[in-house]
Amino acid sequence: MAMADGLSKDLVVEDLRPILGDRLSTSSAVCEQHGHDESYHATHPPDAVAFASSTEEVAQIVKICARHKRPVVPFGTGTSLEGQVAALKGGICIDMTPMNQVIEVNAEDLDCRVQAGVTRKQLNEYLRGTGLFFPIDPGADASLGGMAATRASGTNAVRYGTMRENVMGLTVVLADGRVIRTGGRSRKSAAGYDLTRLFVGSEGTLGVITEVQLRLYGIPEAISAAVCPFATLEGAVNTVITTIQSGIPIARIELLDEVQMDAVNRYSKFSYPVLPTLFFEFHGTELGVQEQVKTVGEIAGEFGGADFRWARKQEDRNDLWQARHDAYYAALALRPGAKGWATDVCVPISRLAECVLTTKSDVENSGLLAPLVGHAGDGNFHLSFIIDPDNPDEMRRAEALNERMVMRALDMGGTCTGEHGIGTGKIKFLQAEHGEAVEVMRQLKLAIDPDNLMNPGKIVEV
Amino acid sequence: MAMADGLSKDLVVEDLRPILGDRLSTSSAVCEQHGHDESYHATHPPDAVAFASSTEEVAQIVKICARHKRPVVPFGTGTSLEGQVAALKGGICIDMTPMNQVIEVNAEDLDCRVQAGVTRKQLNEYLRGTGLFFPIDPGADASLGGMAATRASGTNAVRYGTMRENVMGLTVVLADGRVIRTGGRSRKSAAGYDLTRLFVGSEGTLGVITEVQLRLYGIPEAISAAVCPFATLEGAVNTVITTIQSGIPIARIELLDEVQMDAVNRYSKFSYPVLPTLFFEFHGTELGVQEQVKTVGEIAGEFGGADFRWARKQEDRNDLWQARHDAYYAALALRPGAKGWATDVCVPISRLAECVLTTKSDVENSGLLAPLVGHAGDGNFHLSFIIDPDNPDEMRRAEALNERMVMRALDMGGTCTGEHGIGTGKIKFLQAEHGEAVEVMRQLKLAIDPDNLMNPGKIVEV
Repeated sequence: MAMADGLSKDLVVEDLRPILGDRLSTSSAVCEQHGHDESYHATHPPDAVAFASSTEEVAQIVKICARHKRPVVPFGTGTSLEGQVAALKGGICIDMTPMNQVIEVNAEDLDCRVQAGVTRKQLNEYLRGTGLFFPIDPGADASLGGMAATRASGTNAVRYGTMRENVMGLTVVLADGRVIRTGGRSRKSAAGYDLTRLFVGSEGTLGVITEVQLRLYGIPEAISAAVCPFATLEGAVNTVITTIQSGIPIARIELLDEVQMDAVNRYSKFSYPVLPTLFFEFHGTELGVQEQVKTVGEIAGEFGGADFRWARKQEDRNDLWQARHDAYYAALALRPGAKGWATDVCVPISRLAECVLTTKSDVENSGLLAPLVGHAGDGNFHLSFIIDPDNPDEMRRAEALNERMVMRALDMGGTCTGEHGIGTGKIKFLQAEHGEAVEVMRQLKLAIDPDNLMNPGKIVEV
Repeated sequence: MAMADGLSKDLVVEDLRPILGDRLSTSSAVCEQHGHDESYHATHPPDAVAFASSTEEVAQIVKICARHKRPVVPFGTGTSLEGQVAALKGGICIDMTPMNQVIEVNAEDLDCRVQAGVTRKQLNEYLRGTGLFFPIDPGADASLGGMAATRASGTNAVRYGTMRENVMGLTVVLADGRVIRTGGRSRKSAAGYDLTRLFVGSEGTLGVITEVQLRLYGIPEAISAAVCPFATLEGAVNTVITTIQSGIPIARIELLDEVQMDAVNRYSKFSYPVLPTLFFEFHGTELGVQEQVKTVGEIAGEFGGADFRWARKQEDRNDLWQARHDAYYAALALRPGAKGWATDVCVPISRLAECVLTTKSDVENSGLLAPLVGHAGDGNFHLSFIIDPDNPDEMRRAEALNERMVMRALDMGGTCTGEHGIGTGKIKFLQAEHGEAVEVMRQLKLAIDPDNLMNPGKIVEV
């Protein structure tokens, strides 16, 4: 088997070379770098990395891999958190970053089409001056193809939805090299199975996403952001719950515990009180934002929040949100040399206080360094275990804590991951959450990837 | 083949009888009534109609059909428009209307779970007094399972989305009788393939939906509705386009041409001017609604709309929207004895004026009676051909008009159906719209329904 593998591996590289030239790398540094994401998950380097330049080229690469039955692992910015890019069974990693063109912006229809390697910040930079923006913002400046593949969300999801709601269509290269276009440019459609949403969140296991059609939004007339510390974590969470239950169309409402705030202060040179804190943003008309601010201010006051610190200028808001997006890197910086294990769950909003507070007390009992941060308006929060993966005791404690947190979320009608995806890290929890439905996922996977070549070992085991 | 069919048909009925007793009907009147929807499509009666009382019972029925390889056709209120319920190859029709229980309402999380036979009006009646409502409203008082199956939308979709955005999870009986639960109660999830959205819009071809988890919304603090006639159809459409492009969060913006307005006046005893007309509704805070009304009033004024007639009281609003929901029945009443062929397309908003006006001129040239009505804010509009299906000339003209309208929408980046679905009526247009992707739909269908027993002949031909 090892010999056959070695042989087909060499043959694939031999067949790819004429197409890709020096855009095919077998250097161990490049393969190593493409074999892991930003988490603690072990590195599994691919046989080679192909830097793709077009959909047609991706199709050629995939066809060659199919002929030799070698796996294909799509790679964006490598910022996933559940081991999604590890080449568990070797094969060819397709690095999509050279496919970084914005193909079209239809300002009058609030949509655009991009190649999969365009990053979220690059798109928003491109849109500067159009009055439009793309809201979905995971912490990293991820590629939009990768964000579609992991069904990413971020701080704006409470108002604008996730990639599920904001991807209108895709170009996908299937396991046999066929190219399909899903979805379209109309706001709704009842035309057949919703392939777009099947591929959104499929983490490269059903095909390689090469182009993405996205919804855009007009930049609101008024934007206002604020930071508010709370005496207790409970007060902060209850402010979130009441805000959401009141139907206030808040754009962002982010929760950071005091450990995370300490990390943010150090990393981003802020001097916020080291207390459980909410970051808010309000979008709307001038009057609408004033109304929202007043109502949310009253709610926060009831729960022990005081002292809203406002970021009125755009630069100040950018600094504030950059600090929030850097939360994971800030947490990592608390312990130089350590790795991060970022886990996330999502629960119905009415259960958020119970879930967060019980988890927090679990963290305190564990003795682990694990800042808590979350897109609390969605009922979604993360723990980042800052650990030494070579320390079995730490790993055991992190595993136990993660398992308790996930099973608690499932008991509450929630999900084992709100936005990080399954990868390799949450396969057993997917089974716990969806039971027999996982078998259906497996059947669908095999229907369009019968040889299990597309990012094998992720989401469903075959 | 006919004999074998006849045999297995009798055996199925024999096996079902002990389970269902008199909830299994083979009466020709009942079978006839279940063999067609509200459109002109020909009646194809099932062998028998099973009135199901639980998910477990549906699973038993499906297992028995699977054993005898007889088709299964799920049936809600029979209000589909593209022949979705016709039992093209016979088999057992499962009438879901006895499954009409609201299972739970989680007011604090703005969600609920219902059996598939609960209708949209029944749910809203049930929610009365909770301060919550469910917004999706196709014209008919359809069942929520049927609405999920056809990815229905309606007048509120411009603000609240369609069934795609509002179904959180499903219970589905698969072709082999397995029962799965998809989705969950959290607002977002990155846990595996999005089976919920694969089944939403699958028109019974992948399984029988028996329960639906739905998002609910708080009834807005302020609601205001108005009707405004325009001198020209162009003025009305341009008002819609400008309103949407301005990012106004309008709740409803509906377009009716003068033929449809005449029909509405006659059917619902109104006396609106017989002119192209927009029906509006605004949701928000008191101040927010005032702002929206002012801005939209100015836009309408620019395009020749005058004379907003306001419906301020809830009864008046109910009458207004009931009249809008009855538009199809009003159109049918224009020509007693005729049948309706309601077709719909959806285009990017910037192309709506061109699409509507060219289609309208097509209608005028055709000599057909075909009122135009639409959820224009979504870029979605319908023609209802009011025809005699036994008149080949009328049918030919309707076919030609339908084909031109659909192909025009596709050329504009739109879809062959915004909300009515594919059924049997739009299979060739699905192919024109999605090409190779239809082959993927077929592969997925066969993966979980290898014998093609679930509503065969709809969406994809196998």
